[in-house]
Amino acid sequence: MKRDSSLVTKAAITAVGSYVPEEVLTNHDLEQMVDTNDEWIRSLTGISERRIAKTPEHSTAFMAIKAAQDLCQKNNINPASIDVVLVATITPDYQVSSTAPYVATEIGATHAFAFDISAACSGFLYGMSTAASFINSNQYKRVLLIGADKMSSIVDYTDRTTCIIFGDGAGAVLFEPSTNDYGFENAIHGNDGVGRDYLNIHDGGSLHPINEHSFSAGKHYVRQEGRTVFKYAVKHMSETSNQLIAKNKLSPEKIDYVIAHQANKRIIDATTHHLAVAKEKVLTNIHKYGNTTAATLPLLLADFESSFKKGDKLLFTAFGGGFTWGAAYLTWNYDYKN
Amino acid sequence: MKRDSSLVTKAAITAVGSYVPEEVLTNHDLEQMVDTNDEWIRSLTGISERRIAKTPEHSTAFMAIKAAQDLCQKNNINPASIDVVLVATITPDYQVSSTAPYVATEIGATHAFAFDISAACSGFLYGMSTAASFINSNQYKRVLLIGADKMSSIVDYTDRTTCIIFGDGAGAVLFEPSTNDYGFENAIHGNDGVGRDYLNIHDGGSLHPINEHSFSAGKHYVRQEGRTVFKYAVKHMSETSNQLIAKNKLSPEKIDYVIAHQANKRIIDATTHHLAVAKEKVLTNIHKYGNTTAATLPLLLADFESSFKKGDKLLFTAFGGGFTWGAAYLTWNYDYKN
Repeated sequence: MKRDSSLVTKAAITAVGSYVPEEVLTNHDLEQMVDTNDEWIRSLTGISERRIAKTPEHSTAFMAIKAAQDLCQKNNINPASIDVVLVATITPDYQVSSTAPYVATEIGATHAFAFDISAACSGFLYGMSTAASFINSNQYKRVLLIGADKMSSIVDYTDRTTCIIFGDGAGAVLFEPSTNDYGFENAIHGNDGVGRDYLNIHDGGSLHPINEHSFSAGKHYVRQEGRTVFKYAVKHMSETSNQLIAKNKLSPEKIDYVIAHQANKRIIDATTHHLAVAKEKVLTNIHKYGNTTAATLPLLLADFESSFKKGDKLLFTAFGGGFTWGAAYLTWNYDYKN
Repeated sequence: MKRDSSLVTKAAITAVGSYVPEEVLTNHDLEQMVDTNDEWIRSLTGISERRIAKTPEHSTAFMAIKAAQDLCQKNNINPASIDVVLVATITPDYQVSSTAPYVATEIGATHAFAFDISAACSGFLYGMSTAASFINSNQYKRVLLIGADKMSSIVDYTDRTTCIIFGDGAGAVLFEPSTNDYGFENAIHGNDGVGRDYLNIHDGGSLHPINEHSFSAGKHYVRQEGRTVFKYAVKHMSETSNQLIAKNKLSPEKIDYVIAHQANKRIIDATTHHLAVAKEKVLTNIHKYGNTTAATLPLLLADFESSFKKGDKLLFTAFGGGFTWGAAYLTWNYDYKN
């Protein structure tokens, strides 16, 4: 039977963790690898450096485990008490055997239900809606949502249009039933399948399985048509965010922080310009991490956790491969304790 | 705030659709390709034939679209009224750009939020819990869940241990708020990351990216260690199903149908033996489709839809790569109308 939404258990983010590899790849390093330069990269993307997991064993799961352990250790969370482990990623350790079960086992989340979410740069945002729904169902109390991508495993370091953008990293948040009515409020998500022609790995899926030429032709690497992605990203992130602001009877001044996918500083600037949100409310860390795909939103939460106060109004927005996009409205649940 | 579970909107399956390719690959065909024979395949796996999408363009998304269209056409569902499109698959059309957004666009689900779920043979089962939670949240009213895999795109047709098992196909179900209190009741899911060493595609993930030897070494194909998978599958499907039966204060006699993942007839027999459920309640179609991974459960629903009556008690169980496993209890929501 249909019940009143106001009776649904609200989901809150109650803890945050993160991990980035130690190895730094600077713009000056890239100048030695492809025809590019620091000034051009910074003006075009806002990126000065990114982290790259150079050790082969430091896979997506490795980083996800580190981020989850950081969250558990800082907040005294017993991993065995976690009910669900979601990993948003487009660079799973393996195809077929997904990343989340391995992460769950390795961190000691021995009673968890675990699976991967695939929605590219919107993966963590979509995972937030999924995690919140699991709490709403009253079947699960602790949902660990991790966004993790080892983009360096699919980037062509001879392609100057992509290798300057992406970095590796992982972030994690814990969702629990809210005890104060602050938490995940609602979201609007959308998609357009036209996007798969503009941002993809050409070979390795069921449409174009790996063949004898895939490797030599570089068709196992991620490619994008930057201009089209830029246009769609700005349009859909800004439109969806404005729809969500209207839906919640908010105004730009009432938003405390915008947590936008860190794809490119110009996309962030153009999107938030359309939102008419004051610049200082738009959080960024793209200069030091680049675009870490599913990890950008939780890495922002981790970097700015100490700034958030109970009741702060956070607007999340993301755009990515598919195309997929969306926006979510969340009221922050706790004051930071060091 | 924490609310009473009895106040949560229950999710019901209200429509079913399916698609399998026309091309049949029989055991006799396989006798011409690898050292095997019909009798051995049937006694070992219960499979006589499987469907294979031989046309390259007939990808996972193609089949998912066909299954979704079948569902919409048979039930007069306007695709634009669908709020969420979930595709459970381990053979997405592309990496990076997931399959669900493309499926949503192609079927006309123009307002949907869409992403892929990766949990191998447990993908559809996990999708059921996810779809039900989206309904529980009161944020979404129509959730289309598709299980689709083109296993022939990752199977090595010179490996007689895997090529006899897998087939291609897609099934779809629609979840909506229940109007009669029959629907998705609850589930128990588990996992063990040890499994990724026993069932995987070795190359192509972030742990072992594609290299110049991947293709020639056949490391882009799915491999499994059958004996280990068999042992884990029987143990965890039967234990979890029995836990779920106890949790719901049911007994084996009260279950009307068991909808078990069609991995192998021997696994189904051994699992249901431990459940003490009468043999005729255990639905099978593995003889004609083989193991279609995320599509096995909805293909069973599609094949047996006319048998189900309102109020029937269905026990779902699955096991797959990861390892992932689980069981779900659902009461059927409608009487079949031709």
